[in-house]
Amino acid sequence: MLKSGEQFLEELKSRKPVVYILGERVNDLTNHPVLKPSIRALMKTYDLALDPKYSDVMTATSHITGEKVNRFNHVAVSREDLVKRIELMRMWQHEVCACTMRCPGNAAINALYDITYRIDQKYGTDYHKRFVEHLKEIQKRDLSVGGALTDSAGNRALPPSKQADPDMYVRIVSEESDGIVVRGAKVPVGGACLNDEIFIIPARPMGKDEKEYAVAFAVPADAKGVIHVVQHNLIDSRSLVAEDIDFGNVKYASSFSAASLLILDDVFIPKELVFMKGETEFTGPLVAEFASIVRMNGAGCRSGLCDVMLGAAASIAEFNGVANASHIVDKLTQMYYLAESIFLPAVASAYYGQQAPSGVYLPNPSYAAVSKMQACDAIYEVAKLAIDIAGGLTVTMPSEKDYKNPEVKKYMDKYLHAADIPTEHRIRMFRLIESLTANPVLCAVHQGGGPIQAQKIVMWRGANIEEKKRIAKALAGIQE
Amino acid sequence: MLKSGEQFLEELKSRKPVVYILGERVNDLTNHPVLKPSIRALMKTYDLALDPKYSDVMTATSHITGEKVNRFNHVAVSREDLVKRIELMRMWQHEVCACTMRCPGNAAINALYDITYRIDQKYGTDYHKRFVEHLKEIQKRDLSVGGALTDSAGNRALPPSKQADPDMYVRIVSEESDGIVVRGAKVPVGGACLNDEIFIIPARPMGKDEKEYAVAFAVPADAKGVIHVVQHNLIDSRSLVAEDIDFGNVKYASSFSAASLLILDDVFIPKELVFMKGETEFTGPLVAEFASIVRMNGAGCRSGLCDVMLGAAASIAEFNGVANASHIVDKLTQMYYLAESIFLPAVASAYYGQQAPSGVYLPNPSYAAVSKMQACDAIYEVAKLAIDIAGGLTVTMPSEKDYKNPEVKKYMDKYLHAADIPTEHRIRMFRLIESLTANPVLCAVHQGGGPIQAQKIVMWRGANIEEKKRIAKALAGIQE
Amino acid sequence: MLKSGEQFLEELKSRKPVVYILGERVNDLTNHPVLKPSIRALMKTYDLALDPKYSDVMTATSHITGEKVNRFNHVAVSREDLVKRIELMRMWQHEVCACTMRCPGNAAINALYDITYRIDQKYGTDYHKRFVEHLKEIQKRDLSVGGALTDSAGNRALPPSKQADPDMYVRIVSEESDGIVVRGAKVPVGGACLNDEIFIIPARPMGKDEKEYAVAFAVPADAKGVIHVVQHNLIDSRSLVAEDIDFGNVKYASSFSAASLLILDDVFIPKELVFMKGETEFTGPLVAEFASIVRMNGAGCRSGLCDVMLGAAASIAEFNGVANASHIVDKLTQMYYLAESIFLPAVASAYYGQQAPSGVYLPNPSYAAVSKMQACDAIYEVAKLAIDIAGGLTVTMPSEKDYKNPEVKKYMDKYLHAADIPTEHRIRMFRLIESLTANPVLCAVHQGGGPIQAQKIVMWRGANIEEKKRIAKALAGIQE
Amino acid sequence: MLKSGEQFLEELKSRKPVVYILGERVNDLTNHPVLKPSIRALMKTYDLALDPKYSDVMTATSHITGEKVNRFNHVAVSREDLVKRIELMRMWQHEVCACTMRCPGNAAINALYDITYRIDQKYGTDYHKRFVEHLKEIQKRDLSVGGALTDSAGNRALPPSKQADPDMYVRIVSEESDGIVVRGAKVPVGGACLNDEIFIIPARPMGKDEKEYAVAFAVPADAKGVIHVVQHNLIDSRSLVAEDIDFGNVKYASSFSAASLLILDDVFIPKELVFMKGETEFTGPLVAEFASIVRMNGAGCRSGLCDVMLGAAASIAEFNGVANASHIVDKLTQMYYLAESIFLPAVASAYYGQQAPSGVYLPNPSYAAVSKMQACDAIYEVAKLAIDIAGGLTVTMPSEKDYKNPEVKKYMDKYLHAADIPTEHRIRMFRLIESLTANPVLCAVHQGGGPIQAQKIVMWRGANIEEKKRIAKALAGIQE
Repeated sequence: MLKSGEQFLEELKSRKPVVYILGERVNDLTNHPVLKPSIRALMKTYDLALDPKYSDVMTATSHITGEKVNRFNHVAVSREDLVKRIELMRMWQHEVCACTMRCPGNAAINALYDITYRIDQKYGTDYHKRFVEHLKEIQKRDLSVGGALTDSAGNRALPPSKQADPDMYVRIVSEESDGIVVRGAKVPVGGACLNDEIFIIPARPMGKDEKEYAVAFAVPADAKGVIHVVQHNLIDSRSLVAEDIDFGNVKYASSFSAASLLILDDVFIPKELVFMKGETEFTGPLVAEFASIVRMNGAGCRSGLCDVMLGAAASIAEFNGVANASHIVDKLTQMYYLAESIFLPAVASAYYGQQAPSGVYLPNPSYAAVSKMQACDAIYEVAKLAIDIAGGLTVTMPSEKDYKNPEVKKYMDKYLHAADIPTEHRIRMFRLIESLTANPVLCAVHQGGGPIQAQKIVMWRGANIEEKKRIAKALAGIQE
Repeated sequence: MLKSGEQFLEELKSRKPVVYILGERVNDLTNHPVLKPSIRALMKTYDLALDPKYSDVMTATSHITGEKVNRFNHVAVSREDLVKRIELMRMWQHEVCACTMRCPGNAAINALYDITYRIDQKYGTDYHKRFVEHLKEIQKRDLSVGGALTDSAGNRALPPSKQADPDMYVRIVSEESDGIVVRGAKVPVGGACLNDEIFIIPARPMGKDEKEYAVAFAVPADAKGVIHVVQHNLIDSRSLVAEDIDFGNVKYASSFSAASLLILDDVFIPKELVFMKGETEFTGPLVAEFASIVRMNGAGCRSGLCDVMLGAAASIAEFNGVANASHIVDKLTQMYYLAESIFLPAVASAYYGQQAPSGVYLPNPSYAAVSKMQACDAIYEVAKLAIDIAGGLTVTMPSEKDYKNPEVKKYMDKYLHAADIPTEHRIRMFRLIESLTANPVLCAVHQGGGPIQAQKIVMWRGANIEEKKRIAKALAGIQE
Repeated sequence: MLKSGEQFLEELKSRKPVVYILGERVNDLTNHPVLKPSIRALMKTYDLALDPKYSDVMTATSHITGEKVNRFNHVAVSREDLVKRIELMRMWQHEVCACTMRCPGNAAINALYDITYRIDQKYGTDYHKRFVEHLKEIQKRDLSVGGALTDSAGNRALPPSKQADPDMYVRIVSEESDGIVVRGAKVPVGGACLNDEIFIIPARPMGKDEKEYAVAFAVPADAKGVIHVVQHNLIDSRSLVAEDIDFGNVKYASSFSAASLLILDDVFIPKELVFMKGETEFTGPLVAEFASIVRMNGAGCRSGLCDVMLGAAASIAEFNGVANASHIVDKLTQMYYLAESIFLPAVASAYYGQQAPSGVYLPNPSYAAVSKMQACDAIYEVAKLAIDIAGGLTVTMPSEKDYKNPEVKKYMDKYLHAADIPTEHRIRMFRLIESLTANPVLCAVHQGGGPIQAQKIVMWRGANIEEKKRIAKALAGIQE
Repeated sequence: MLKSGEQFLEELKSRKPVVYILGERVNDLTNHPVLKPSIRALMKTYDLALDPKYSDVMTATSHITGEKVNRFNHVAVSREDLVKRIELMRMWQHEVCACTMRCPGNAAINALYDITYRIDQKYGTDYHKRFVEHLKEIQKRDLSVGGALTDSAGNRALPPSKQADPDMYVRIVSEESDGIVVRGAKVPVGGACLNDEIFIIPARPMGKDEKEYAVAFAVPADAKGVIHVVQHNLIDSRSLVAEDIDFGNVKYASSFSAASLLILDDVFIPKELVFMKGETEFTGPLVAEFASIVRMNGAGCRSGLCDVMLGAAASIAEFNGVANASHIVDKLTQMYYLAESIFLPAVASAYYGQQAPSGVYLPNPSYAAVSKMQACDAIYEVAKLAIDIAGGLTVTMPSEKDYKNPEVKKYMDKYLHAADIPTEHRIRMFRLIESLTANPVLCAVHQGGGPIQAQKIVMWRGANIEEKKRIAKALAGIQE
């Protein structure tokens, strides 16, 4: 049931999605330098599940099949399931420190499990049954599943139905007897070209007259009409020219995250993979549940990344001989504080989570937003503190190729030496910090689960201002 | 078993502790204007426990006696017990918005329950049995119990045994066959003169040669030799000249917290009330457990206070006609965020709490410190935001006496009127905000559970830097 | 020409404004406990001008009369004049640490000097001549002049002309041949009942149809129909019950600032004192110039207050024996940083100030707003740091009356003693910190010159976004 | 006298410094893709000086020769000269948005002008005359001059004389009759391989027994024994694979800053270029003056960079159709505020600058540190706000090569389109933001002029705590 990384790789080789990188069609995904670190990370999502040390967090017993499944494909049915997801993600950053490319898929699975149930309750449809059938397949085949929310969106000031081009949000362009045809684009979609399939859900609440946009479905990454145009950010540029040391994170390159512009160019989706079709009033709840899960899960990812930055900063301070300086200790303590300030509200969002009638356990949405807001507040500060401790060499280190030229190496060994450790260790640690503080990493943390204003809207919704006004008025002796 | 507030008041009348306020010995505590708001608050700790609406959080079933007891006197034996304590405190602020004067007592009860057990395990002493006997009495008689940690402390750069005056920390000055005689002072001690009795514990880890300072015991508030010199802060000054509106918090005056300089002038403590005597290695753990509990419990208090500030700021914005301005909504959202950023880590500190061998459930100390650190970061900002929204009238409002003079009232009614509500409501709300942002309140939040550096020390201890360095080195490919 | 404080006091005795405090009409202002600290401060504005040590900052040579005048009554005619005003205010806080009650007057003088000139240029009126004549008188008689901007304002969502009660903003209710009759209220107005006269100016830009509200004039504090209802905040409460130590700031009680609800109950203003009457398009510029001056001047006040907090925190750290702890040094450094972060942008706002055609030198408004925004960001943090360093005794100290009772004093001397200094010094310093961190002080700093949103609006206006967009587009190679 | 960029380029072609990039010796500097953007920037330092629009800030009249010189090579002799330097740097960022590679040279020129004078005053040496002679040459030949402070430094916990390897700080290894031989390394040194020559000065105060390390001199970039190992950061990686759009900043690639590990492998320095030799007590002042100038000058650079980020964020908001959303306006205002909070204290550090006996005008060091500290506080927040506004496409945009493939372009044009502007504009703006928020840029801002602790040390030195304690004690009525 649980595959190994190698098995995943073998299957990946056999898939032929349409993928463009740097303007060229890629035929062998598994050998492209830009994708390699992400593929290693995806393989690790399998191998860690087979590792007894991690099986408690990496796997769960499916309440559908009773079988052991990868937790990424598991529907949470208890408070502990929620906390385990956060813990999984934090451990993941410690082990891999890159994107799993399976979180949005996990959020989509959990949210759709609930929303399909709710739609069926109202309309007597059979989405939930379809969905459960498909999920069994996913669990059984141990598929790697992505999730895509954000549409290309066009002019942000206008709703889907008012855009000059109606395709700015994914929509149904025609219906067939056995399915639908969809068009549009999602961007960015993390790791989609490497996933087995991707859940596509709406990015915003749709109005009553926007039925064609109220659509949710699964699509294989290599379905006809699906095109992936892969991102090219600074870490991707590095991938093209670097060897291992210069990755910093030597295996996984802190890769966030082989994301692509995912184009659906009139793709046929068979009925069995359609999980919402026109029920506009459920788009809002679907987005909300999906986002809450992403925020809660992501707290483990974000705090774990801060842990790694903390470990790297502490290491470089040690290598520089200043580990015990009071201002260094103070900054490291601040980094710890910020890491836990992301993690702990997410745990509490799980503690105050609730079981929906469908059976799925969902986190408290406001508290999940508090956790994400803490990450928005923290991640650039944590990076700054790491940079502050490490110093300018973080971005002025010569390359691994320099270090391999004996003429240059002798100088680097002499002059980049610090406290009593091999110079190469110090070079490696600077490279790791460079990689961790690169903008693809920071931006992924900041934007994943939505930017600042998205959190504020959710928090405002949960703030219960009227009750708090009532309390204040009572204390002030105001009788209305 | 559970007394009413009135019963508490009756008993208070019969006690005659030595109390000084404004340089004068107070004979009738229950009629002194400086104490009245605090007494009302203490009474409320009883009445709320009898209120069915709150009995879930305000009471618990004692695992010692199997009886229903006030939660302030309860030993936590589950994760839920911990969370309930936080929830109790938050609700308390909503209802009363003043000091309970029973939190340190609760922390002392829980920490001593554990530490006496641990001492006995090591030394075969019988502290735990004594303690449990005494606790049964407290629970049975539903006593109001205080706790005192902070010593007068003298020169902060020196340990107890190196002070010019050996009495700077509470110590045993002599031993009798049936008890000990203690001397020293604790300051500030919240509400001690109103409590039935006070637990006295050391404020810091004691060295091997500081056995006389390694002492913990309970002392009745009116024991011979106990003297209370009551604080006089700005809210106390207001109490002397104000009527109800000018209290802001009209019943309880946001009173933090009838604290006093508590002097132990050679007080005899009978053996049955002595819970540590010379076991210096347990002073550190006792302080640590006490402080963690105070920090966790206090998160409810601190976030609840923020809730009230939020409610007051939202009310005044409504009264001013600007409730929907985007910058107001933004600031209120920020206040919500800060309130929850205090509360949620405390809930997580309970979630990751652990049951000690003695049976008591203790919060995760680092996470409790994170919560307290959030409060240190937040409380002045929350106050600032409330002031920012409310404006200068917060501190320039004429007095209630002005409002009662018809010559002046007519002008105040006309010119302090704003949106469509009675002018008096607006005056009351400004007074509430004045009261909430007064420095006795903010300082109590900031200092209670220790100031910033105390949190940093605890967090640094919990940060597990070595493990994080290991993680970073592994990712960077460093083999040591 | 330059009066002494005593001379001011004598003249004050002879004035009989209508003043209410705590609901009672006050006949002898100079003997009321609530006003005494403020009167001492006002006297100091005279005495410091006579002190050769401070004459450089406290006085200037009037460009109108060529005589030496108090700088509060001086029109700035150079960049140095602007900087001196900031330096004056910072020095003032060091010497007095209370409200001058003359800053808004100074701002009104400088702004009206300019705006009357501009109105005359457009309409051929003679406001400027009137104003200069009146200013000569002020300078010659060395009057203490207040300024009042903020109207009672009613519903903040509505402009003056749309209020249910038309008197919510000061307005002309009738015109006579030799003057006008005005009605309305300004609140809060700092020190108005102690000033010789007050300049009244509009609080906001008025619309074309709001001519009756476009009115600026001077009014003697004791003119017929002027009524002062004095504020009652926590420091005022303290004034009623305290002796010298308990003031903290023993002479001036950190008094901010004998402010009142200033009512104009159909007051006749003779023509010679009217400086704007219906020229609505000049209300916006008048408000803007007034506010910029208040912001720039106030930077000296705000940074000087931070200096005092820093000095007090450093003193208490010394008294506690921890002056050299690294975290203490770090916090004191932060306080210094914040103080200068307020001061320096104001100096730069003077450096980039410009001379108007009228001859007056005006600060750069955006930069003055930056300085004020820094104060909004800083003042609560500085107070927090002071409290953090000082500890809980700041708000739990017994009273001076306790200290005067020998029975209590012996305990206070013993147990409030710390490092090697008299206990009384320590008590005094805690009281000073209590006083400095009281909400009347913090709120005055935060609200004076406008709260956060006011600064943001001014900054946004000055941000020149279009030019910055042009720059970014050029760098990105975008040709439009 | 003033050269053009082309003339500079011609001369550069004729120089043959020893330069390694990516492990290979570079023979033609002017054609290496990693260096091209920096060379363009250096050329611009010449061309802008010839541009009448900028001649006021870019040039000055040398007080030595009376000739017009590039301001980078000018000694400030007035307050205005200081302010102009800050303004120059801000303008530079608007025009070029990359490193000038001439700022440290400017700081070295100004600091050495003063320190050589001071040494001569004490010892009767002739360093100042030598220095002035050399400076004339620099001004006359319009040379591009670098400056290098930071040593390789080894174990940061040890002073130079206690390092295991004595070469960890640049030192004199032998003296000849006509000069000295030096050994050591400076790292990072911005643009050194492209400069004509570099001033080398000590990085820290040297002890009396560290005479060999108390050495300052100038060295041509291509002197025998000088070796440059060029950095390789993420922007450098991008340079190897990108075309113009993908640079973001299409001409200059936001290049900070062709920095290298500069090795001095027993380099002979003729007497005429030696400006300090063994006068250890002047190393501290030299470092301090150099650093203050770098901090003050750099404020223009840092605020100018923030301006560009602001312009880019405002542009992308406009392109996305959300320019008027209140939260966007709020964030842009915050960016403006932060930019000016860096700039204005630097202007004030110039205003409070003082003329040294040597004639050079030096900024106030504490105030320059305040400005730098503001930059440390601001730059990551400004970047975060830009990212927050721009969104995830900042780091997930496909490459320019994708956009050039018509198969892909059609999809990008359709799906990356937003408001009513060409899609390419939007792509370009995302790339600009990617480039501006890349860690080489942020780290350069953060580390240039020293990290946080360096600023704190300077501020603490300038805080005058004793005077502030005196003030507080006087207000509290404490007589010592």
